[in-house]
Amino acid sequence: MAAEIAEQPAVLAGQVARRAEFAEVARGIARRPPRFALLAARGSSDHAALYAKYLIEVLLGLPAGLVSPSTVTLYGARPDLRDVLLISVSQSGGSPDLLEFTETARAQGALTVAVTNTPASPLHKAAELAVDIGAGTEQAVAATKTYSATLLALYLLIDAVRGGDGSAAADLGALAEQALQADVQRAIDRYRFVNRVITTGRGYSYATALESALKLAETSYLAARAYSGADLLHGPVAAIDEDTAVLAVTGSGRGGGAMHDVLKAVAERGADVLAVGSSSQDVPAALRIPVPEVAEELAPVLEVLPVQQLALGLSVARGGDPDSPRGLLKVTKTR
Amino acid sequence: MAAEIAEQPAVLAGQVARRAEFAEVARGIARRPPRFALLAARGSSDHAALYAKYLIEVLLGLPAGLVSPSTVTLYGARPDLRDVLLISVSQSGGSPDLLEFTETARAQGALTVAVTNTPASPLHKAAELAVDIGAGTEQAVAATKTYSATLLALYLLIDAVRGGDGSAAADLGALAEQALQADVQRAIDRYRFVNRVITTGRGYSYATALESALKLAETSYLAARAYSGADLLHGPVAAIDEDTAVLAVTGSGRGGGAMHDVLKAVAERGADVLAVGSSSQDVPAALRIPVPEVAEELAPVLEVLPVQQLALGLSVARGGDPDSPRGLLKVTKTR
Repeated sequence: MAAEIAEQPAVLAGQVARRAEFAEVARGIARRPPRFALLAARGSSDHAALYAKYLIEVLLGLPAGLVSPSTVTLYGARPDLRDVLLISVSQSGGSPDLLEFTETARAQGALTVAVTNTPASPLHKAAELAVDIGAGTEQAVAATKTYSATLLALYLLIDAVRGGDGSAAADLGALAEQALQADVQRAIDRYRFVNRVITTGRGYSYATALESALKLAETSYLAARAYSGADLLHGPVAAIDEDTAVLAVTGSGRGGGAMHDVLKAVAERGADVLAVGSSSQDVPAALRIPVPEVAEELAPVLEVLPVQQLALGLSVARGGDPDSPRGLLKVTKTR
Repeated sequence: MAAEIAEQPAVLAGQVARRAEFAEVARGIARRPPRFALLAARGSSDHAALYAKYLIEVLLGLPAGLVSPSTVTLYGARPDLRDVLLISVSQSGGSPDLLEFTETARAQGALTVAVTNTPASPLHKAAELAVDIGAGTEQAVAATKTYSATLLALYLLIDAVRGGDGSAAADLGALAEQALQADVQRAIDRYRFVNRVITTGRGYSYATALESALKLAETSYLAARAYSGADLLHGPVAAIDEDTAVLAVTGSGRGGGAMHDVLKAVAERGADVLAVGSSSQDVPAALRIPVPEVAEELAPVLEVLPVQQLALGLSVARGGDPDSPRGLLKVTKTR
């Protein structure tokens, strides 16, 4: 897991270098301009899909939704998907329910695009267009480099659809290198014995909050749970007390700005706040992990990096084995 | 909270009796047949919206998505929403972000429908069509009767759009009465000191799992978290151990059937399973709470009732005040 975390600057830089591949797929989408977008994914890829949903709504001005594959695989729904763009995101490209959903969606008229790290996978072949994440084989069960590379692949694809050249991502390799220099040891020490962890973020960075909770759950067995900052105030804030650690993603964009009310409510409940992000210096917190500044829509690619290191460090500190978490296989097959 | 829980059989029966109102709104939708559906909601209403997403995809064959209001309220997105049906769900009808999203969506071409319990609310007036949940004033902070009544309102509306007469819901009042007779005292005793709770369900009943986790979090301050059965196997199952209580929603339909694999994985990890649903007798569990049989798409209306009683009972047993949970107000205003 540590080795794959360290590979990320090179993987991201490599992806930026082959921007032209994304532009090619974007031209395929432009030939059949969609009116609605759907995203299908599971696990970490589902968090990347949520990030892409924000990109599609904000940058492309298209309504978008996350797919519940079971409507098709369990209940046999056959929705009318003409004028729909379906983006299926799966590191392995091997999840049976995503494959079945993608095949059905294509038959129902959707333009299907697979985003996978496995060009030989059934999903990659089932879709009309395909993007290779190109992160190289990932051996650790907990997704790290495939997650950040999936985020960037989705950004480059969607930016290309709107006619962009991906230039905002040009320095991402160097910035990732810098993000990985952050000192996470104090956070590892502080949360060695924590039982209750809540993660929260807004806007694009809600995806970071979700992925952070999953990383902590699967490597350190923490019952971490994520809320969008807005939803946190609708009920779950009551469960926060002095024994709760709150990992708050606080970037310098509009999503981070909207976290100030959330952090105020959390502070009133006495929680121990770990702020992660380019604006972490500007909020009340017990500990802070800075992240280099970048365009807000790319911040999730960087924010997750020190959190991966925190999850790895906590797992080791708590006596776990981050490379083979109990009860998990690399490819989960659900129907 | 106890009084409002007990009102539900009468509220649901009353709603069924005024089915004609839903048919009237459905005719308004039929005059502008949508090609895509969006649902906007927060908190408990968001779980009702997810339930409606399944109904729309399976019963109407329309692709549907849950709205992230911040794309409009924070990032200023102006998506093209012609041919889109937006259903905004809010008990109070007073959430500023839902109001702003609904107004923007209407200006962008969507057909807007408000589903609220407050006909005098700004949201009710902002939408072109509106459904009154009709649950009567809810005083307890934790939504109970407004939640089940919102589910039924959405079912009756969507069923009417496909030309149904709501007959599958005819006996729901009596069935709710029966569901509330379930013995939850053993579960209250067993989980008095629990720290880790995970809730899970699939298909329509994933909404029940989400709402159950929220009820336990806001009344008993439990760090409960919900996963769809499929997502649980993608990572979070690693965080389950002998100290984890798993509330599994196990109905007799296709969603419940797909829970068998999930319960097998959970049992292998030694978790303490509480099965709730019409098929709870058929799965390995430490405790079971039966729920009367009804058409699968209506099961979530009944399944949540004993869970509300469990949340109430646990709150009292743990020394809390379910009528005024710390840190919460009845109407949460987020932007």
